[in-house]
Amino acid sequence: MNVQTETIHLLAPQQELVPYLSVRGRSLALAAPLSEEDCAAQSMPDASPIKWHLAHTTWFFETFILERFESNFQPHHPAFRVLFNSYYNGVGDKHARAQRGLLTRPPFDEVLAYRRDVDARVIALLSQPLPPQLLTEIRGLLELGLQHEQQHQELMMTDVLHLFSRNPLKPAYADILYSLAEAPPALEWIPFASGVVQVGYEGTGFCFDNELPRHRQFVEAYELASRLVTNREYLAFVEAGGYENPALWLSEGWDWVQAQQIQHPLYWQHDRGWHTFSLQGMRPLDLNAALTHISYFEADAYARWSGARLPTEAEWEHAAQTTAELSQLFGTCWQWTSSSYAAYPGYEAAAGALGEYNGKFMANQYVLRGSSCVTPDGHARISYRNFFPSSARWQFTGIRLARQA
Amino acid sequence: MNVQTETIHLLAPQQELVPYLSVRGRSLALAAPLSEEDCAAQSMPDASPIKWHLAHTTWFFETFILERFESNFQPHHPAFRVLFNSYYNGVGDKHARAQRGLLTRPPFDEVLAYRRDVDARVIALLSQPLPPQLLTEIRGLLELGLQHEQQHQELMMTDVLHLFSRNPLKPAYADILYSLAEAPPALEWIPFASGVVQVGYEGTGFCFDNELPRHRQFVEAYELASRLVTNREYLAFVEAGGYENPALWLSEGWDWVQAQQIQHPLYWQHDRGWHTFSLQGMRPLDLNAALTHISYFEADAYARWSGARLPTEAEWEHAAQTTAELSQLFGTCWQWTSSSYAAYPGYEAAAGALGEYNGKFMANQYVLRGSSCVTPDGHARISYRNFFPSSARWQFTGIRLARQA
Amino acid sequence: MNVQTETIHLLAPQQELVPYLSVRGRSLALAAPLSEEDCAAQSMPDASPIKWHLAHTTWFFETFILERFESNFQPHHPAFRVLFNSYYNGVGDKHARAQRGLLTRPPFDEVLAYRRDVDARVIALLSQPLPPQLLTEIRGLLELGLQHEQQHQELMMTDVLHLFSRNPLKPAYADILYSLAEAPPALEWIPFASGVVQVGYEGTGFCFDNELPRHRQFVEAYELASRLVTNREYLAFVEAGGYENPALWLSEGWDWVQAQQIQHPLYWQHDRGWHTFSLQGMRPLDLNAALTHISYFEADAYARWSGARLPTEAEWEHAAQTTAELSQLFGTCWQWTSSSYAAYPGYEAAAGALGEYNGKFMANQYVLRGSSCVTPDGHARISYRNFFPSSARWQFTGIRLARQA
Amino acid sequence: MNVQTETIHLLAPQQELVPYLSVRGRSLALAAPLSEEDCAAQSMPDASPIKWHLAHTTWFFETFILERFESNFQPHHPAFRVLFNSYYNGVGDKHARAQRGLLTRPPFDEVLAYRRDVDARVIALLSQPLPPQLLTEIRGLLELGLQHEQQHQELMMTDVLHLFSRNPLKPAYADILYSLAEAPPALEWIPFASGVVQVGYEGTGFCFDNELPRHRQFVEAYELASRLVTNREYLAFVEAGGYENPALWLSEGWDWVQAQQIQHPLYWQHDRGWHTFSLQGMRPLDLNAALTHISYFEADAYARWSGARLPTEAEWEHAAQTTAELSQLFGTCWQWTSSSYAAYPGYEAAAGALGEYNGKFMANQYVLRGSSCVTPDGHARISYRNFFPSSARWQFTGIRLARQA
Repeated sequence: MNVQTETIHLLAPQQELVPYLSVRGRSLALAAPLSEEDCAAQSMPDASPIKWHLAHTTWFFETFILERFESNFQPHHPAFRVLFNSYYNGVGDKHARAQRGLLTRPPFDEVLAYRRDVDARVIALLSQPLPPQLLTEIRGLLELGLQHEQQHQELMMTDVLHLFSRNPLKPAYADILYSLAEAPPALEWIPFASGVVQVGYEGTGFCFDNELPRHRQFVEAYELASRLVTNREYLAFVEAGGYENPALWLSEGWDWVQAQQIQHPLYWQHDRGWHTFSLQGMRPLDLNAALTHISYFEADAYARWSGARLPTEAEWEHAAQTTAELSQLFGTCWQWTSSSYAAYPGYEAAAGALGEYNGKFMANQYVLRGSSCVTPDGHARISYRNFFPSSARWQFTGIRLARQA
Repeated sequence: MNVQTETIHLLAPQQELVPYLSVRGRSLALAAPLSEEDCAAQSMPDASPIKWHLAHTTWFFETFILERFESNFQPHHPAFRVLFNSYYNGVGDKHARAQRGLLTRPPFDEVLAYRRDVDARVIALLSQPLPPQLLTEIRGLLELGLQHEQQHQELMMTDVLHLFSRNPLKPAYADILYSLAEAPPALEWIPFASGVVQVGYEGTGFCFDNELPRHRQFVEAYELASRLVTNREYLAFVEAGGYENPALWLSEGWDWVQAQQIQHPLYWQHDRGWHTFSLQGMRPLDLNAALTHISYFEADAYARWSGARLPTEAEWEHAAQTTAELSQLFGTCWQWTSSSYAAYPGYEAAAGALGEYNGKFMANQYVLRGSSCVTPDGHARISYRNFFPSSARWQFTGIRLARQA
Repeated sequence: MNVQTETIHLLAPQQELVPYLSVRGRSLALAAPLSEEDCAAQSMPDASPIKWHLAHTTWFFETFILERFESNFQPHHPAFRVLFNSYYNGVGDKHARAQRGLLTRPPFDEVLAYRRDVDARVIALLSQPLPPQLLTEIRGLLELGLQHEQQHQELMMTDVLHLFSRNPLKPAYADILYSLAEAPPALEWIPFASGVVQVGYEGTGFCFDNELPRHRQFVEAYELASRLVTNREYLAFVEAGGYENPALWLSEGWDWVQAQQIQHPLYWQHDRGWHTFSLQGMRPLDLNAALTHISYFEADAYARWSGARLPTEAEWEHAAQTTAELSQLFGTCWQWTSSSYAAYPGYEAAAGALGEYNGKFMANQYVLRGSSCVTPDGHARISYRNFFPSSARWQFTGIRLARQA
Repeated sequence: MNVQTETIHLLAPQQELVPYLSVRGRSLALAAPLSEEDCAAQSMPDASPIKWHLAHTTWFFETFILERFESNFQPHHPAFRVLFNSYYNGVGDKHARAQRGLLTRPPFDEVLAYRRDVDARVIALLSQPLPPQLLTEIRGLLELGLQHEQQHQELMMTDVLHLFSRNPLKPAYADILYSLAEAPPALEWIPFASGVVQVGYEGTGFCFDNELPRHRQFVEAYELASRLVTNREYLAFVEAGGYENPALWLSEGWDWVQAQQIQHPLYWQHDRGWHTFSLQGMRPLDLNAALTHISYFEADAYARWSGARLPTEAEWEHAAQTTAELSQLFGTCWQWTSSSYAAYPGYEAAAGALGEYNGKFMANQYVLRGSSCVTPDGHARISYRNFFPSSARWQFTGIRLARQA
């Protein structure tokens, strides 16, 4: 056996392509109910057009895999490097975020062609013999690219929901995602003892850099709500004048409520009874369903009003590790924690542009835990750290209460 | 002869429909080179999506003719009354101007169906027997609706130009509108004697209310440039530091230049020689061509730099009435005058919502005279008063100089 | 008689210093009721601190007379050239307008010393023998400087009124300027025939460059109200819902009303009856008194509501020249005209920095005619052109109606 | 001994008044070098006029002590309750923060009279016999009021520094606070082992509610710099292009650097060598002195550039408790930590308006530890938690580096 033979390896047998093709295909499926016009519009700077999501996730594979590993790499289109760069200063210039909705060119079909081209080239790359070291690295980047695309799949849903919410015709995205909630069980307080706990990812699968290193934290004794806050419960807060009472709010939250004239969750509307706008269009408010689309400020105010508080992310993670008594941890809505998004002790960002993936956002954002109804299957983890600014509401965000034991 | 016979009148024989069908068809033809995505985007609050233009011009006929004269009028779609109202407070609510680009619904096809439906109903209305008095009124509104649509046809071209200018791919709308200009004749100063002149529309054809009443003004002796300022001439101003010398600018203009960091006309770009963005895409600057896409502030500063001034609208109109020595009066670009847009003595706006067409804009805007390369044939007149705020640049706007005799 | 003798001239005998000392002294007298704190504050970018007015008017004499004509000129303080330059780009840099309220240094006393020093040097200059040509020029600049200071005396009153209006303690400047108005005579319409009229200053006294050249204009027949609109009349407009009816407003005015939530004149306040804030503090609204502190937009809306219009400045000036039937032309409040501030035909700004005095503001402002209760005696003229942007309200501005004959 | 006797207590013998009079007197002493004009101006919304500080600290005693405990309480001036309320919604309305600089009335002398009146009434109250329970409560509020006034004493210095920095005359506050720094010792890394540590105030003296409860935290092993970062060290970062390299910055920090065009610490200025503006006026930059007046973003970027990080507040506090090897903990400048300002586990805000003192600011701010050169003597503590938004720079803020062991 010679060295030459040893370094040859068939990276991508059929079965290894399944996740790639599956995730990539799901993005297109999510866009299927939408027109080209729907896919091109941008409803606010925080949101992006669907077409842009489809292109940017492709740019990610092109930039971080093809550009690095493909022989004689040529970009699919030289302008796309700038057009579809989201925030990676290490890659170079970026198209202004707030103007993504002006990119009527390249047309939708050309973005689909871009996807097909990059997919073919990624598959070709994976079909070549590669040295084991490269193999490991590419597999890592491929996994990262797919996780990245899954994150954008969630954003596609929240962004199209926001776009449609701004349209007076109140169009529905689809009829498949919601059903009327059953009456929830009574809220129970699950106790956890004080002590040193372990926080952060442990295992051999994929995780983002911000979930590492696994480390110790001390938590004082606490209790966690067995389920999420419902619309009915939050409506009581609204009707009790929660939005008019500054004593319930953080100072910055109260300024926000007044400046933006906030009076209820983002998609609620009072018109002969409470309604809420959803991916199914405008519907009567389901009082049994979990509250969603609230900001950190609202979550914090509601918790204070109810005599409780938000959990820290360590409390949430420790509880999720150690008990089966908590429902709605995943798949309903992201749960605000009181933890400002920060590096774990010993955190190290990746070298180069990929180091910008998570680390540079570690200021003035709050961590959310769990996952939501539009998070792709298999994407969530107990150690997963989502994060958004304290006034963000267009994600599927809700409340799990905590209190001191 | 009985009364019945007398009031019966065939309003729309074949030939009377020609202008209606022609103008309406031209709007669609202008949209033909564009994708649905192109037609849905809005590049700034001052501009509108092409789809919106197509719908709004239709709304105009529906609202001001069908709603009033059609028996058992039913709106094509109840939401369109708000969605496609531009600025007529008398009609009711309006969709926020800056958010027209979010209207991915109704889809493009549905707007085309809206046009077809309204067209059919207008033609049906015109094919009915009508009393002579109604006939006159409808004919007037029909004419107004077509003139209105022609104004929007010009805006469609300026708005798509602006949209494409913001796209890093610098797409071209079409190749048909421009050709390389011939060297212009030397600029001559055409003299006009002082005296009382007549200003305002005279005749039996169509004019807007702001062109009336025809009235007298006194003009001191003056001279008018025989042709428009060229790119070559304006480039000399740029290269002489015109944009860096506050002594040349109105105070508000200088603030604007500094705040917006203006250094040249809107679509000029310096990249190994001067280029300009056009409906044909990015092209080398044609030095012989007439300067265009400048604000009132720039027109005024250039005039001051060259030892001249801008004409008043009375000077422009009197000259256009009385001499054949002036070239480029029409069909090249609109010509800024020093006249603030104001009511003529005795001006009366129409009753009702149509009274908002012109009158309510008579403040802090400047009158432009002539017409541009994208003004529809037959739309311009010597007495025509176009008007824009002093910082507007996305129209085809240029300079004809004047000076005291 | 030799040349030497001929060029020697005693510019300033005692009596010639009277106007200088009188005007300069009046500025200090106006500041007398105020504390040093009152004199240092700036309530909005449009207004300036009293101390700044006192310094800037002094800077004017120092810059345009002493710097040019004094032998071995040394500035009183090198930093003052920038600190107290208002808007003369030709003189050099300027301190940011909106930050004049931060200039707690130089202290008030030092500004008084600045005034004394410049006064002494001006008087010394005027006491020297000077060639006749210089004499004429200096006399012209001296006159301009005094007229300029009188303009600032009016601004001192309007600026301190605005400052005090923002103070919850509602302090009074003084008790001397107002008294309860008598019931006004019935409004009469004074007719004027059409024809060519003369507009602009005629005579040998002082006028600003913007009043020249005297020239001809044609006016159609019109009528002018014999007196100003009263608070009682304007209150009827308020109570009739004038501020809620878009049909009465210019488009830009309606946007302004809505964005700023304007519901009444600037200093009116409804608190168990209408009150108004004045230089005497908060007082019950005097219904017989002339309406004041309204914007051009409000003046225009009121005129439309009352079935009339605002006069042009030519109409106002011609009327003031030719009849004695108009009351309240001067000394009550400035009267908005429908004329956008523009150059008269043949207007020429002075050379150098003084050319910035008037000309560069000739855009997007409206002319006011007459004078107000805080205009210094002797400062007004029939041909005087005051001007402010269409939303300005802190000057003493009111309405005289006009209509077609 | 009867109950009557028992409840009688002389609260304020001479010696007990010493701290009150001393702290209250120090505020006036700090204002002594300033003019009334200096004391009335507000240079930015974050800063307040000196006069306002003097009044607000007095309002604190009047509102939270006199209003509650004085018999027949009458406010010194009814308007002051609103004018000098900083942010206590529980007390009622507040005067708009950004307009404190417009309060030329009440005049400075009247604020001094306010101070004298409240001081006399507080002393009178303290001289009365009071039940022990009230005594304890009043003593607590008195202590809180004095600590509050000391916090404002620091703000008086930072606010006047900012005001003077905006004045082109660059005035000096005083010559007493600075001297040239000696060359600092070499930076050493002091190691700390991992383990559960105690955080929060322990003792019987005064502390703010945000320092409680004392609780346990787990810290991984770390090292702390023995001294603060110097100007010389930070200048190396500046000269190495630190402000031009996005890879060094948090994303929000980079946006801030670009939007505000930040290129160096707040008061640095490059003009034939580096200078810095200080309470002594403009001075050459002292390279040996500790860096100060930088934002959290700058602190974080510098730490990243130097291969280190900022400490958490638990790391800082544990180190300060357990070693004598750290210099410049107190009295030089506040030290940014990477800890977002948040409630300690079990934190409880006080009831009523005083509960707004600290708790409502616990979002999107970062904790600073130690104290500065303008912190009053005796005010600082190891457990003291100062906090400011991540872009704040006008406080005396610097950097102590940390790193993993």
